[in-house]
Amino acid sequence: MSRLSTRTDVLEVLDEHRCLEYLHGAALGRVAFRTGDDIDIFPVSYACDGSIVIYRTATGTRLARTPREHVSFEADGWDPTERMGWSVVLKGVALDVTEGADPYSKVLRERAVIPLAPGGRYRWIAIYPKEISGRRFRLATPPG
Amino acid sequence: MSRLSTRTDVLEVLDEHRCLEYLHGAALGRVAFRTGDDIDIFPVSYACDGSIVIYRTATGTRLARTPREHVSFEADGWDPTERMGWSVVLKGVALDVTEGADPYSKVLRERAVIPLAPGGRYRWIAIYPKEISGRRFRLATPPG
Repeated sequence: MSRLSTRTDVLEVLDEHRCLEYLHGAALGRVAFRTGDDIDIFPVSYACDGSIVIYRTATGTRLARTPREHVSFEADGWDPTERMGWSVVLKGVALDVTEGADPYSKVLRERAVIPLAPGGRYRWIAIYPKEISGRRFRLATPPG
Repeated sequence: MSRLSTRTDVLEVLDEHRCLEYLHGAALGRVAFRTGDDIDIFPVSYACDGSIVIYRTATGTRLARTPREHVSFEADGWDPTERMGWSVVLKGVALDVTEGADPYSKVLRERAVIPLAPGGRYRWIAIYPKEISGRRFRLATPPG
């Protein structure tokens, strides 16, 4: 019997509410965007405000050059005991809210987000999602 | 004193040897590629053969439509006790090695990779990296 086709494998598409629950429950994700023809992926420590993801980055880094359009963000988790995993992907627009004087930018900046790349002079970037999708999966056999 | 500018934060660029050590020590990563103007990101269970990353996907899925060019793969890890994280990114070419009769494709298929999206009729995809980069970071304050 193949270990690949067990009946207990389950894949479940998550609605937006569950996606946000998972997003809010995690703290590490990845930002992806195009750099020329290639795609760069950066791990980030993030916080959420509703469906908006906020992260920080030091100025001068490649991550600080997050473009405005076509930015994706992913967070996932894996519970080896339950053999249950989840993944949530946001696609949207990234805005630098470092200097925004509006109350909303201030609220975003007050969220505790610790940049993974140490250094000074941080920028705050918020991803406003146009699309949120997620899924949850349970495997009969563990990966790895 | 800001929690953001402590002297014990460390960022270290990893050489290829260390990147591969981390890659071989993990089992879950993410594949990213363009779909139109957007970027899709998929969590995958993977295995390595040297610097080649192999994953499987069910036919008919979006992941099964991994393009040949400009595919990125990322794996990372976070040790909350040590407050130490790492991230490795491969950029390269993705080849479907499901049906390759050459010895090398067979070797790749013999690696144990369990697809995260359950279902039948799997495809094997191998990412041949053109570029490998990685970094390791230690934070004085934990994320989240």
